[in-house]
Amino acid sequence: MEFDEILAGGQQELRRGTVVLACLLLLREPGYGYALLDRLRDLGFSVEANTLYPLLRRLETQALLVSEWDTSDARPRKFYRISPTGERLAAELLADWERIAASVRRLNQGVSS
Amino acid sequence: MEFDEILAGGQQELRRGTVVLACLLLLREPGYGYALLDRLRDLGFSVEANTLYPLLRRLETQALLVSEWDTSDARPRKFYRISPTGERLAAELLADWERIAASVRRLNQGVSS
Repeated sequence: MEFDEILAGGQQELRRGTVVLACLLLLREPGYGYALLDRLRDLGFSVEANTLYPLLRRLETQALLVSEWDTSDARPRKFYRISPTGERLAAELLADWERIAASVRRLNQGVSS
Repeated sequence: MEFDEILAGGQQELRRGTVVLACLLLLREPGYGYALLDRLRDLGFSVEANTLYPLLRRLETQALLVSEWDTSDARPRKFYRISPTGERLAAELLADWERIAASVRRLNQGVSS
């Protein structure tokens, strides 16, 4: 396997873990699937539609997101936004993320214990 | 599914992506599997032996780690350390990690684009 391929795999793994957190934070402002996909891509998360849409449905089932249909347009759209439980999860994941970030930085500086 | 269970899953996902990076950084000092497992756990990465050992072998196959047997003890141990290619990958992943961290922080502060 080429270095670039290994790197791409590693980068994707790094991002995969943060997609849920990124979705929750983005959906503090109501958004629908396709627009969210665009914003995630702008942020460097190369998520596919067939990964994101089931993820949004799962987050709704877990009561982390709530949804509402906007039928004012010719094409009805399902808008998602974060729920209070979702906010709580996002806060916990952010705190955890900061702990991991601190560990990684300490490791990089050679303080491994 | 309970909140705590969802949180534990999310936390595990966050960590999974950084295990490779953590291993590479830790193995700037030569180490063997079992000791590495302990240090990863101290850092909050709850990795299982049956996940770590195949991972180390894969990283060696990818030329990111090199290994050497220490047979001076009654029980021979395989010591791994990072290779120059591994250092290059670690540097790239660290840079990428910082980009993701910056995106997540910006999102949290409400600057989503």
